Amino acid sequence: MDRKDVNYGEYLHLDQILHAQFPESDRLNMPAHDEMLFIVIHQAYELWFKQLLYEVESVAGIMKKPAVNDNSPELQTVVHRLSRTVTILKVLVHQIDIMETMTPMDFLDFRDMLRPASGFQSWQFKILEARLGLKFEHRYGQEYYISQLQTAQINAIRHAESEKSVLQLLNDWLERMPFFEEPENWADYQPVTNAGHDANEHIFWNDYRQIYAGSLADAEQSNREQFNKVFLENTGTGLSAKACRAALFIMLYRGYPLLQLPFQLLNSLLEIDEQLSTWRYRHMNMVHRMIGTRIGTGGSTGRDYLKGALDKHYIFADIARLTSFLIERRKLPGLSQKMERRLGFL
Amino acid sequence: MDRKDVNYGEYLHLDQILHAQFPESDRLNMPAHDEMLFIVIHQAYELWFKQLLYEVESVAGIMKKPAVNDNSPELQTVVHRLSRTVTILKVLVHQIDIMETMTPMDFLDFRDMLRPASGFQSWQFKILEARLGLKFEHRYGQEYYISQLQTAQINAIRHAESEKSVLQLLNDWLERMPFFEEPENWADYQPVTNAGHDANEHIFWNDYRQIYAGSLADAEQSNREQFNKVFLENTGTGLSAKACRAALFIMLYRGYPLLQLPFQLLNSLLEIDEQLSTWRYRHMNMVHRMIGTRIGTGGSTGRDYLKGALDKHYIFADIARLTSFLIERRKLPGLSQKMERRLGFL
Amino acid sequence: MDRKDVNYGEYLHLDQILHAQFPESDRLNMPAHDEMLFIVIHQAYELWFKQLLYEVESVAGIMKKPAVNDNSPELQTVVHRLSRTVTILKVLVHQIDIMETMTPMDFLDFRDMLRPASGFQSWQFKILEARLGLKFEHRYGQEYYISQLQTAQINAIRHAESEKSVLQLLNDWLERMPFFEEPENWADYQPVTNAGHDANEHIFWNDYRQIYAGSLADAEQSNREQFNKVFLENTGTGLSAKACRAALFIMLYRGYPLLQLPFQLLNSLLEIDEQLSTWRYRHMNMVHRMIGTRIGTGGSTGRDYLKGALDKHYIFADIARLTSFLIERRKLPGLSQKMERRLGFL
Amino acid sequence: MDRKDVNYGEYLHLDQILHAQFPESDRLNMPAHDEMLFIVIHQAYELWFKQLLYEVESVAGIMKKPAVNDNSPELQTVVHRLSRTVTILKVLVHQIDIMETMTPMDFLDFRDMLRPASGFQSWQFKILEARLGLKFEHRYGQEYYISQLQTAQINAIRHAESEKSVLQLLNDWLERMPFFEEPENWADYQPVTNAGHDANEHIFWNDYRQIYAGSLADAEQSNREQFNKVFLENTGTGLSAKACRAALFIMLYRGYPLLQLPFQLLNSLLEIDEQLSTWRYRHMNMVHRMIGTRIGTGGSTGRDYLKGALDKHYIFADIARLTSFLIERRKLPGLSQKMERRLGFL
Repeated sequence: MDRKDVNYGEYLHLDQILHAQFPESDRLNMPAHDEMLFIVIHQAYELWFKQLLYEVESVAGIMKKPAVNDNSPELQTVVHRLSRTVTILKVLVHQIDIMETMTPMDFLDFRDMLRPASGFQSWQFKILEARLGLKFEHRYGQEYYISQLQTAQINAIRHAESEKSVLQLLNDWLERMPFFEEPENWADYQPVTNAGHDANEHIFWNDYRQIYAGSLADAEQSNREQFNKVFLENTGTGLSAKACRAALFIMLYRGYPLLQLPFQLLNSLLEIDEQLSTWRYRHMNMVHRMIGTRIGTGGSTGRDYLKGALDKHYIFADIARLTSFLIERRKLPGLSQKMERRLGFL
Repeated sequence: MDRKDVNYGEYLHLDQILHAQFPESDRLNMPAHDEMLFIVIHQAYELWFKQLLYEVESVAGIMKKPAVNDNSPELQTVVHRLSRTVTILKVLVHQIDIMETMTPMDFLDFRDMLRPASGFQSWQFKILEARLGLKFEHRYGQEYYISQLQTAQINAIRHAESEKSVLQLLNDWLERMPFFEEPENWADYQPVTNAGHDANEHIFWNDYRQIYAGSLADAEQSNREQFNKVFLENTGTGLSAKACRAALFIMLYRGYPLLQLPFQLLNSLLEIDEQLSTWRYRHMNMVHRMIGTRIGTGGSTGRDYLKGALDKHYIFADIARLTSFLIERRKLPGLSQKMERRLGFL
Repeated sequence: MDRKDVNYGEYLHLDQILHAQFPESDRLNMPAHDEMLFIVIHQAYELWFKQLLYEVESVAGIMKKPAVNDNSPELQTVVHRLSRTVTILKVLVHQIDIMETMTPMDFLDFRDMLRPASGFQSWQFKILEARLGLKFEHRYGQEYYISQLQTAQINAIRHAESEKSVLQLLNDWLERMPFFEEPENWADYQPVTNAGHDANEHIFWNDYRQIYAGSLADAEQSNREQFNKVFLENTGTGLSAKACRAALFIMLYRGYPLLQLPFQLLNSLLEIDEQLSTWRYRHMNMVHRMIGTRIGTGGSTGRDYLKGALDKHYIFADIARLTSFLIERRKLPGLSQKMERRLGFL
Repeated sequence: MDRKDVNYGEYLHLDQILHAQFPESDRLNMPAHDEMLFIVIHQAYELWFKQLLYEVESVAGIMKKPAVNDNSPELQTVVHRLSRTVTILKVLVHQIDIMETMTPMDFLDFRDMLRPASGFQSWQFKILEARLGLKFEHRYGQEYYISQLQTAQINAIRHAESEKSVLQLLNDWLERMPFFEEPENWADYQPVTNAGHDANEHIFWNDYRQIYAGSLADAEQSNREQFNKVFLENTGTGLSAKACRAALFIMLYRGYPLLQLPFQLLNSLLEIDEQLSTWRYRHMNMVHRMIGTRIGTGGSTGRDYLKGALDKHYIFADIARLTSFLIERRKLPGLSQKMERRLGFL
């Protein structure tokens, strides 16, 4: 085996990493101290974006397998890596504190030298969004988007979109969840007749829907139709009705051994969305504080773009939405022994 | 003097503090483990709100004096306490992490028992906003606001609004800043004729306006009128044109000794707004994650209210806006020696 | 049912919570602005200590049951609440930032008024340590400890120690882990003869010990005896040899479904120790920065006590120690099918 | 002027930055997923070390000037950049959270492939310590230190030590502080006779020493000699007695305009030490959790080295020590009008 002594600097390619900072203000001989910070922080972000992509790809790779073997460590690995993704995103949010030590006057010293480059052009971040599940047609400001990126980059992002995203793989995985037999006809509801639920998914969800409807306040009656739309029709942007039922089932009965990791999986995806959202929000505030209503180096009024993205770029909104359809634990339909056995170690 | 031994528990009134948690779920005999967390975290928030109010009142008390004596430690005290306010707000934002360990299902176990109480009813937080400078007429959802609070609380908030807020005191203080003699007629601009600027505020700002206008891109021409509105007319919601000029001057020439603490003061007010904004944003996300589109315990669709407040409740927006009107340091009009002396220790 | 409208302020007993701040400097008519912060932050800490105790008690309550039913949500509940404990501790560490906004000069304004009260006298924190598993005889500075607390408090802490701590309950639970049959005689090692391991715990660990020994560098040979001490003799301060074997087994084979939550349980206990340790460390630094080598209000040179506690108060050191005895995943002894079935859903 | 369009990727040299990750486990064809994280996080650290060095060099560059002109923005720039240094260090501490998502078993997968490389070999970090003021002779484990680094690196660190460090420059700057005339003979104390203090540094400090001594408890009497050692003799490891007097004066009278930035300067240096210390502490805990008592890849028992460094590597200990010699604000000797004028804008 080709094992030789490893040297810290060579191993990390520090020559390359530490000699990649070339301020424009130096080149133009108009020194601006803070440009170094500007370069270093963006490079640090891009390094972490690479790592985030690496984790997300590995997660997609595992979920792509015909079946995540519930007896293997794979589901645990998925949860672990998504939770690492959250941890990294938290540090990236915190890192904005460093950027904020650059005052608007300090930024002005070199801002015009960077045109038309812009943080918007981080294709790695866009690929990350795409691999998680954001589609081009759901992006805010599509024309601006196209105008800012180079063809090769657009192609790379398009390619990333064309592969099954984490959201799609989640959908497939949820649809495979073997809790119930497949229902044949959702219109065909029947009242529940036995103590436990399982034989028939129709019966279970019909019963559940009744309990849920009974828990709604007068002002919440529109949630009743919402329930039908989400769980019976296929109106989700990302998850099918069948996948939504499986996800809700996981949330409701998360205590059973078989559902514990699936619950953690759903939760970590929500946390990823939340961290991305916090990142966009603090980023937006920072840009506003830095350039106010001036045009950003990339030609946009940066804040408007970021604000538009804020509302539209929730990737796992279909999971978040399920919260509206929970009922109290003490009102949950009990499960049959057969079902309990399926969900446990017994 | 009445000095006697102090006892830890008595000094902190721990008997009182630690025996003030009475879960409704206990009283109703429907145990819900997480209600204790719900109570404790709200009490911790209210304790910190008290402290924030205490700091903000003390700051207002100092700024209310006819003139903050520039030779006294008072301005430094103001900056120090505002910066402590920021530090506390950061912890309060972080504290949301703890709330998020409560899952929607765990909240459902006792949510209905709390109606119609709601975090919205924290009058201390509303008094805090009022003391900083938020006026009733600028609040989002005014009717909802009135409907949720008790008369005594509304009166307390109204009273807090009726006193000079930090924003108003800032305005007065900025207007008192003795950089220039008071201009007589802003229409009467003259070209600048001497190397340094000071004798005439007209001349200085006229010159500045020209440099600024010259720095605008084609797409930014509307900023030109904005400049006039902000610095010559009185269109601000909080700061007068005169105060805006003083604040911009501080930002531009912050390097001079006399302007260093004033610059830190402006900065810490912006940071307070930013932390409040991050707090509202994470709070909004948390509420959404917790109850989805269900009606909050206080009867509102919580998220909508918080979202509305998000855009409207910036208190120091007039300071934030100044960023749009900066020019590059190397293009700054030089100051006369007389002015330099006024701003320094010489 | 006795359900009536709940009012925010009454529910949280804000009258009580917000009227429990009485600065000594006010009473003595020698105003010291920062004493309010000092009171509020300690009250906030004590509120959170109450919550931490509440979570830890509930965890102990679950673990105390003859067997945590692996098919029930209970183990998940334990992990969830310990992980919340970690989240709370992180905020408490962060909260030190607030205390550090008080400069030494500001503290001096009222420090002498508080003697002999001291943060050391927080009996809730000591009960928390005791319930987790810290014994009196392992505490640093035992005499000082006795001298500082009142009899009733010492009794309360003693009582807390007398009940089974989380560490002891963990030990019991680990000893109950049904991976292997109980070995009869550890001296009786045999070489491994079949592809998988399970029939005989002797064989498994003997084999493991050989692989482990083979992975040691020359300078690490003392780890070999350590291995025997930890896993064959009962030298742990908290965990028996049998419990240590179970814990190591969990770490090594954490991928199997049955071991996933147990692994998370061990991990969250380590995180609790780490956060407590970071808390003590930052606390020690803060005290040093605040009073230097002066005597603390409680009569100790605060920093020395905290420093002593730093090294001695690791509660789950026996779990942390296991890291030294891991081997590479690719060298792990394979498990027999029978064992695999026991650890999975199949 | 050579201004051309700037491209995001080229400007940041992303080709270079993002193609510098070559896991040994790939090369050896023994895939270990987490090695990528290991590489990326170390590269991110080194990027930030470069930025920290850049800020610290710029600070040293300003302080090296014969006199920091108090009328120029330079002192403010120094404080601003040191405070940015603190902000960066806080993120680096937080970043350890990411490393901790790597479990010991995951690290074992590739640990042996890295020998004898070790994080200890980060010469940038050692240069940073050296530029702040850590001397070779005060480092813990000097032989180990020499054995681990390459000659070129040792020379680079030695060179960094040979230039005036921030600590030495601080000493020079403090000695230049023009509060008093230079005392001639410290033995020659006289009682204070006039209302204010200034004419004679002897008188001022003699008076101060008496007040201080009067404030000491019985158990603190050794502080009396300490006082003499620190402020009259030159026993400090970094700061001279004269510099210590100036620093204490700044702390005591920080309210005066001239002393506000100097106070912030001292404070930010203490915060740097504190963050470095927290970094070492969390780092030590992480290493312990990762490898236990095994030998680190660099051949040391990593934790022992880090623990040794913890106590010895405080760079600004002489400033921290001053806290022990403060007296209550209300007992401070009043200053003469002449002195007050010197410290203010009047």
